[in-house]
Amino acid sequence: MSEYRGYEGNSLEFLKNNQVVVGDSVKILSDITYSGIIMPRYEHSDDKHIVLKLKSGYNVGLEIAKIKNIEKIQSSEKNVDEPEKISKIEGLPKVLLLSTGGTIASKVDYRTGAVTPVLTAEELNSSVPELSKIANIDAEVLLSEYSENIMPENWLEIAKKISSYSNSDYSGIIIAHGTDTMHYTSSFLSFALAGFPIPIVLVGSQRSSDRASSDAALNLIGAAKFITESKTKGVYIVMHNDENDNTVACHIGTRVRKNHTSKRGAFQTVGDVPAFVIAEDKIQKNISKEFYKTQEFQPKINLDTKIALVKYYPGYDPKLIENIIDGGYKGIIFEGTGLGHVGRVMYDSVKKANEKGILLGMTSQCIDGRVRMTVYESGRDLLNLGIIPLEDMLPEVALVKAMWAFGNTQNIEDVKEIMLDNIASEMSI
Amino acid sequence: MSEYRGYEGNSLEFLKNNQVVVGDSVKILSDITYSGIIMPRYEHSDDKHIVLKLKSGYNVGLEIAKIKNIEKIQSSEKNVDEPEKISKIEGLPKVLLLSTGGTIASKVDYRTGAVTPVLTAEELNSSVPELSKIANIDAEVLLSEYSENIMPENWLEIAKKISSYSNSDYSGIIIAHGTDTMHYTSSFLSFALAGFPIPIVLVGSQRSSDRASSDAALNLIGAAKFITESKTKGVYIVMHNDENDNTVACHIGTRVRKNHTSKRGAFQTVGDVPAFVIAEDKIQKNISKEFYKTQEFQPKINLDTKIALVKYYPGYDPKLIENIIDGGYKGIIFEGTGLGHVGRVMYDSVKKANEKGILLGMTSQCIDGRVRMTVYESGRDLLNLGIIPLEDMLPEVALVKAMWAFGNTQNIEDVKEIMLDNIASEMSI
Repeated sequence: MSEYRGYEGNSLEFLKNNQVVVGDSVKILSDITYSGIIMPRYEHSDDKHIVLKLKSGYNVGLEIAKIKNIEKIQSSEKNVDEPEKISKIEGLPKVLLLSTGGTIASKVDYRTGAVTPVLTAEELNSSVPELSKIANIDAEVLLSEYSENIMPENWLEIAKKISSYSNSDYSGIIIAHGTDTMHYTSSFLSFALAGFPIPIVLVGSQRSSDRASSDAALNLIGAAKFITESKTKGVYIVMHNDENDNTVACHIGTRVRKNHTSKRGAFQTVGDVPAFVIAEDKIQKNISKEFYKTQEFQPKINLDTKIALVKYYPGYDPKLIENIIDGGYKGIIFEGTGLGHVGRVMYDSVKKANEKGILLGMTSQCIDGRVRMTVYESGRDLLNLGIIPLEDMLPEVALVKAMWAFGNTQNIEDVKEIMLDNIASEMSI
Repeated sequence: MSEYRGYEGNSLEFLKNNQVVVGDSVKILSDITYSGIIMPRYEHSDDKHIVLKLKSGYNVGLEIAKIKNIEKIQSSEKNVDEPEKISKIEGLPKVLLLSTGGTIASKVDYRTGAVTPVLTAEELNSSVPELSKIANIDAEVLLSEYSENIMPENWLEIAKKISSYSNSDYSGIIIAHGTDTMHYTSSFLSFALAGFPIPIVLVGSQRSSDRASSDAALNLIGAAKFITESKTKGVYIVMHNDENDNTVACHIGTRVRKNHTSKRGAFQTVGDVPAFVIAEDKIQKNISKEFYKTQEFQPKINLDTKIALVKYYPGYDPKLIENIIDGGYKGIIFEGTGLGHVGRVMYDSVKKANEKGILLGMTSQCIDGRVRMTVYESGRDLLNLGIIPLEDMLPEVALVKAMWAFGNTQNIEDVKEIMLDNIASEMSI
């Protein structure tokens, strides 16, 4: 990667003349004095500024014409922190921290400018010293991927790893995970590891650990507290409740969705309050019902990805359904409109898919609320064409559940039964 | 349609023995006395009950074993209301009400059990007597379709009809429309009729007009008040603000989404408060900014449906993108994860699509928030592959905008420019 990434023309010349490169710590005298690390620039930036990352975590663009002096404090090679060693306190509960990557296990790579998943689980652990007072945490790296690159194969890998600890002395397992697809992964783990004897908590962050506004520490501490104090089982996502730094929400792994691109409180339990909330160090159970039915743990770590999620919209060309049929798919989960509808234009293709023995499930693109296909003609038509209404299951969860169901049986009737069996609180009653 | 639709075995025999059919008004003596209309039943119902629609609008199932007497009050043929004639008051503003169908223009058809779009615009008008005190309303039926069957061709039809009134003496135009795809239609009208001299208001209802809990009246009154009092232009959706019967929200037509399958307050302005709220008869403007830029009205009523909306998920098979490319599509709007990502597995297909000159736009399945593709490696990779980040445009709106843009020009560079030009407040700044 270039030492001058993104710099062109005047600004590139400025760096060369002053013998500094991206990643160097510098002190710059301009209108005032700035100390920080020289950041790379993105494509098509102007050539009149250089960008400095300040200690506060924020970036500032400095006009080179106004820079009076620039002094190198430390060269880029030395800007790497060593993790501290964590001492363990006897008697504290044991928690396993598995890292899969994501922003929570990331820092800005000053040489490339990318936020990349480079923190090890050990570094993650040591970066939040409060953790060592809550639990003795063992850390392990499983993957180093942002979650848009976490594939169904990785779900299997994560589930198998967790499953191998079913008879351990851990009080719970924390999975550090990118936020983009965290709710897809939590769904898979909820089904594949139903009945797991200890809580499984996915945790991420919306802002990387080296940013002043990072949510990594609060979320990690929340996850550890949840495991040691909630006295529950099941799969949860633990993240900021809102933009404030004092409340963490613990969401049931099959009822949660990333509903905002950037806010720290991006995750929301759909149609309900989060199952638990941790506010000012106190954990509170919000819902009186039991979330997970008592069941023996019998791992079913299989899946079949030949399922398509189809969002209907006006103008949707049913030929795309024909492509799915021809592609050998075993199931289609529709994101219909409203109570669970698609236009009449789709009926022939839906009929054909049903005749081919393809599972057809209906969810709603409204996200919130429940499909109900007996109210209107179009809903009843679709029922007659073989579409199964999937209650208030979230589209993403229904997709993952169908993948999982077909991984465990190829019998379509069994799959239909599984889809309507409330295995991990994926439907509310 | 059968006179006994859905009734089988004992319950069918019961109806026959008592010489009553579906649609008859009856008085039934059981534990107490019930008056109502015999409703049809759905497939696979039991044969121990008959279903009665009470005057309150609610249905009740009565066990036939407990029925002591049943008396026919009026036969099904006579259960049809005649609309009243509306008198007009001189000096009131004129408003045009166009009906396209949907629940708002529906009632339960007692012979088929379906909620079907059978109310004419005139009946709709006369069913809400308060309207005549706000405006003199002319009513016209344009279509009778539930909105899952409103197709892009219908958008053109609606837009052309509206456009023909650009020099009329109406103060505004109300479109009665099904709620399922109302926000797709409002988006199209926002682009095709940008600059239209009078407000265009889409209004629907979540519960049909003959139900006690119907929201039709409040929403219609709200739409009429909005037109006569808001002093604004543009395209809006006017619907219940929440579950209460005293507040109506007026949403900008490109910033709104149906976010609940059944609630009366299902529509929400994404990421902001509604532009206007009508509470206790008073209209209040919530946002100080101007929503629609001043522009000359020059109708651009064209579209091209060769655009696909693709929601990415783990396990998405890029071959589906190849199908879209081979299908001659002109654009793909991605619903990526988080800030606007898709997995690495998609890169080759995305690259190929870009090389074929297909428009590639990025939105987020988070719904709320803004795509930002310069933060992470994957976002930057996708930018380099030619994907255009579409700010905080909603996926559905981006889809409709791309259809509309390609309807007006086949030049991809022009389309790219149009996609990022804020034409009808579809992006917030």
